[in-house]
Amino acid sequence: MRKVKVAGVGLIPVKEYWEKSIQDLFVDASLIAMKDAGIEDIEKIYVSNMCSAQIQEQLNLAAVMTDFLGKPGIPATRIEASSASGGVAFHEAVQAVASGYSNVVLVTGVEKMSDVLPEIITTSLAMAEEQEYTSYTGVTKAGIAAMIHRLYMESYASPEEICMMAVKSHEHAVGCKHAQYPFKMSLERAMSSPMEADPIHIMECSGIGDGAASIILVPSDGEGVEVAGTAISTDYTNIAQRSNLLEMKAIKTAADKAYNMAGIQSSDVDLAEVQDDFTINGILGIEGLGLTKIGEGAKLVNTQEIDKEGRIPINTFGGLKARGNPIGATGIYQLAEITLQLQNKALGHQVEGARIGLAQNMGGMASICAVNVLRRIN
Amino acid sequence: MRKVKVAGVGLIPVKEYWEKSIQDLFVDASLIAMKDAGIEDIEKIYVSNMCSAQIQEQLNLAAVMTDFLGKPGIPATRIEASSASGGVAFHEAVQAVASGYSNVVLVTGVEKMSDVLPEIITTSLAMAEEQEYTSYTGVTKAGIAAMIHRLYMESYASPEEICMMAVKSHEHAVGCKHAQYPFKMSLERAMSSPMEADPIHIMECSGIGDGAASIILVPSDGEGVEVAGTAISTDYTNIAQRSNLLEMKAIKTAADKAYNMAGIQSSDVDLAEVQDDFTINGILGIEGLGLTKIGEGAKLVNTQEIDKEGRIPINTFGGLKARGNPIGATGIYQLAEITLQLQNKALGHQVEGARIGLAQNMGGMASICAVNVLRRIN
Repeated sequence: MRKVKVAGVGLIPVKEYWEKSIQDLFVDASLIAMKDAGIEDIEKIYVSNMCSAQIQEQLNLAAVMTDFLGKPGIPATRIEASSASGGVAFHEAVQAVASGYSNVVLVTGVEKMSDVLPEIITTSLAMAEEQEYTSYTGVTKAGIAAMIHRLYMESYASPEEICMMAVKSHEHAVGCKHAQYPFKMSLERAMSSPMEADPIHIMECSGIGDGAASIILVPSDGEGVEVAGTAISTDYTNIAQRSNLLEMKAIKTAADKAYNMAGIQSSDVDLAEVQDDFTINGILGIEGLGLTKIGEGAKLVNTQEIDKEGRIPINTFGGLKARGNPIGATGIYQLAEITLQLQNKALGHQVEGARIGLAQNMGGMASICAVNVLRRIN
Repeated sequence: MRKVKVAGVGLIPVKEYWEKSIQDLFVDASLIAMKDAGIEDIEKIYVSNMCSAQIQEQLNLAAVMTDFLGKPGIPATRIEASSASGGVAFHEAVQAVASGYSNVVLVTGVEKMSDVLPEIITTSLAMAEEQEYTSYTGVTKAGIAAMIHRLYMESYASPEEICMMAVKSHEHAVGCKHAQYPFKMSLERAMSSPMEADPIHIMECSGIGDGAASIILVPSDGEGVEVAGTAISTDYTNIAQRSNLLEMKAIKTAADKAYNMAGIQSSDVDLAEVQDDFTINGILGIEGLGLTKIGEGAKLVNTQEIDKEGRIPINTFGGLKARGNPIGATGIYQLAEITLQLQNKALGHQVEGARIGLAQNMGGMASICAVNVLRRIN
């Protein structure tokens, strides 16, 4: 198995692109990554996307995007893993290089959500939940998150303590050029916003946005940022079958596997991007990754330990809440951000001396989760 | 890069399953393959599917199917490459074993098309074509195939000669227990059927069906059926950009790459499964694979050379036309059939002494194509 490194990254701002197509976004991010890597000749392309069938009425994205990038002929594969599409696509792209099949692999995540009315977005996102047992009951993903949020409140933390996950992400996004909402949000503002699904306020949820992010992977030459560990795991899609609703097993299993592959423990991680599509998910992500003890995630986000000068900086560019959450692109944004940190190119967001960073990207209510660990090796 | 072999295959009959869910079909085929391989412990699952977002309103299939198989926790990835989903998923599954990331990989293709009205199927299948330049003109995939079919008629063969592709597939399907239409169809019957898109008769098109097929891949131990070569290629999605409409470059490029990897030439191939979703596509598939000269594909299918006793048996279980074409499962059906042939388990369809077989699986109008070559090594 060959070691794999990041050769370049490309990010475009998360926002609403009224004048561009989903193809344009894909090409824009990909060309930035190619320029960053100084590489024109791509041998394989992975396209990560969740909702194009509903939003753009477009499937076969691997062929479509490869064509629009001006690379017809190049092998390409499209990965869909609901909100975990980016992290899973990255995992597959690593395998393509590790196996020796490809020497230069481009993985680009893209989602363009502003083309349609919100109800189509809601319908499409709801497809992450199993239709016959979960969606059949009429519960949405936000509704499931609300039940888990309430259970966490009963066990471990106050509503305000949980809400701080969103406040912190906004604080970290300030100055981030690719963030959709790069401004501070007060706890009072969030706690007085309307309920999305009681007890989750709308300002505790990530929004709708368009975006694309790219990474180029090549065999490692012993310099720069390597892929130290990569893993996917799954869990019961129907949460009623889970033995403990506050333990997201897919996160823990993927993290343990990725740490094992990297030869590290959770305490070795210098910074992390976690999936804070809801505040409760961000907190359970932190716990699942072992970055704090079970039940202490909310307490941790109420300290300065997750800031860039802290013990374990989390969501240093604003996370899903403030950087934005263009679903199929999100996992690649996370990994591009971790790369920038490890390359010491994170500017105002820089975590000094960061050597090991990870991205945790999950879909459904953690029915699937990818954990990818990157390491600076020189 | 580790060599990879087939440990087991599972097929369920292609038909309309009114009493089963798409999850059921996935599980049924997967369990057959696990039993065939004598393996319970799967390390990674690939799910190949095209249309579940439109038909079942279900995404996140990797997690959903892994859960229903009783394997929550196992890493899983869903691949969508329109009609090439199966061939592309197989390619990715091979990489997972070759790279050393996984030792036992299950790849199952599934599509359940009978749950909805045909117009939803048509809408979903049309998403294989690029929406802004191709579908915008109102042309369907059948319409594009019709233009190419007519061009082939002007250059190389009569309507009847092209139609024989379908007649032969039906002839080969007779006795096939997993075929949707295991009966002979006369040339007169096909040529007198209504037009689907002039000059393509409806009996020259594959139908709508439900199905699932599975393959289990493991590292090779030097026995049985190995993956000798595997490749994906792409092409312009808008056919107006192609220099020659009768040359499907994605087929040729993928085939050349797969042959090169296998260390063979097209003349070494003992049997092939080609993508005869339309008769013209089957013929251009045969030509693109180099199994005959350009322009001589139709002539070849009018001989006994493609029968099981012939020089190059093609679609020995009936192909897409007669075995059936449950889109996301089709590529895996092809590969399972090739495996049965190389294992000398093809019963009434057996090609005596077959050692090298390939499956050609494409999506859109060959905007993406996977060619996988299997070899019997003892």
